[in-house]
Amino acid sequence: MKKDKISSAVIRRLPRYYRHLDELLRAGTVRISSSLLAKSMGLTASQIRQDLSCFGGFGQQGYGYNVERLRAEVADILGMNRDHTMAILGAGNLGRALMENFPFSSNGFRLVAAFDVDPNLVGRELSGTPVYHVDTLEEYLKSSPVSVCVLTVPAGVAEPTARRVARCGVTGIWNFTNVELPQQDMPNVQIEDVHFADSLLTLSYMISEEEP
Amino acid sequence: MKKDKISSAVIRRLPRYYRHLDELLRAGTVRISSSLLAKSMGLTASQIRQDLSCFGGFGQQGYGYNVERLRAEVADILGMNRDHTMAILGAGNLGRALMENFPFSSNGFRLVAAFDVDPNLVGRELSGTPVYHVDTLEEYLKSSPVSVCVLTVPAGVAEPTARRVARCGVTGIWNFTNVELPQQDMPNVQIEDVHFADSLLTLSYMISEEEP
Repeated sequence: MKKDKISSAVIRRLPRYYRHLDELLRAGTVRISSSLLAKSMGLTASQIRQDLSCFGGFGQQGYGYNVERLRAEVADILGMNRDHTMAILGAGNLGRALMENFPFSSNGFRLVAAFDVDPNLVGRELSGTPVYHVDTLEEYLKSSPVSVCVLTVPAGVAEPTARRVARCGVTGIWNFTNVELPQQDMPNVQIEDVHFADSLLTLSYMISEEEP
Repeated sequence: MKKDKISSAVIRRLPRYYRHLDELLRAGTVRISSSLLAKSMGLTASQIRQDLSCFGGFGQQGYGYNVERLRAEVADILGMNRDHTMAILGAGNLGRALMENFPFSSNGFRLVAAFDVDPNLVGRELSGTPVYHVDTLEEYLKSSPVSVCVLTVPAGVAEPTARRVARCGVTGIWNFTNVELPQQDMPNVQIEDVHFADSLLTLSYMISEEEP
């Protein structure tokens, strides 16, 4: 089946599959049935079989799935072995939290640079990543193209900063600014938004059911 | 329709409805057809009508939706008017990024306290929020119960910290630690995970399609 036929709901579940399979592998699990995998993920066995059949179906009747092989297949589908490069735009608290704690490399990304305007940060290294002045962004990206820019700048400069990197040919923007970026003006850039508020409001819904 | 019949996919879309309706209202839009609302959200008109009919259906044939009224209804469904209280556990970079930048109050939450172990932070206020020592967590929650705890502690103490607040009767945990918390041991707590990696891997999938 061609990739572009896969529904976005299935794609959104793939990282969860990867996470669970990775945990199973670390725990020493060699193989797992679709029903056990389903149980540990809160899904049904038939949903798991259906999801994985989109990619060719790696299970064997009566055996289940080989955890290591399935994890490798999911990683490959997710593009985790492409050596994607990445720059962080905005080394404030959130940018620094990602630099210090987020496991970029185990998710297939190589963090190569950070950009900020703060003279106390520019020229330094943070968690091993050099920080450059944002004025040098175009120059940098021209000589060292990156796949993805992480947008952790203040909301007020989110859109102009996104437009700048889009013009430099990045293929993806990981957007933490809560600003809706004009996708129609950047047709060649994939934008992935992290909306903290959507997550919190889902929690708000769940606890409001509990508290009459 | 009873709330517990609503699928989690619909619930996950509700915050997006709220966000779009809020933007429309700020832009001065009084009413909107389901087809226009659908277009701006990248959904189909029939999906929108179906989603909103779960909560009673606020549209009128030939008129569409009154933006202000629909926004208020969605806010009410999401529990945004319940004066939920909140404490942040872990005032590191991520905790501070939330304290400084996240609009808690416009999402219906009142941030009342932060907890950390760093002697340079304890006793201070960060962005107007007092920081207490995490040793005083139980004492604080006993005298001032909060609805939700934000978990921005290091991964190594995520689970014990979650168990502590669960024992104190919080109704929700907003979990940024990337650690899978043992939901079965905290049946009275709603856990909402923010998995940065799931979002990044979705982006990885999308850009890997582009780069053959």
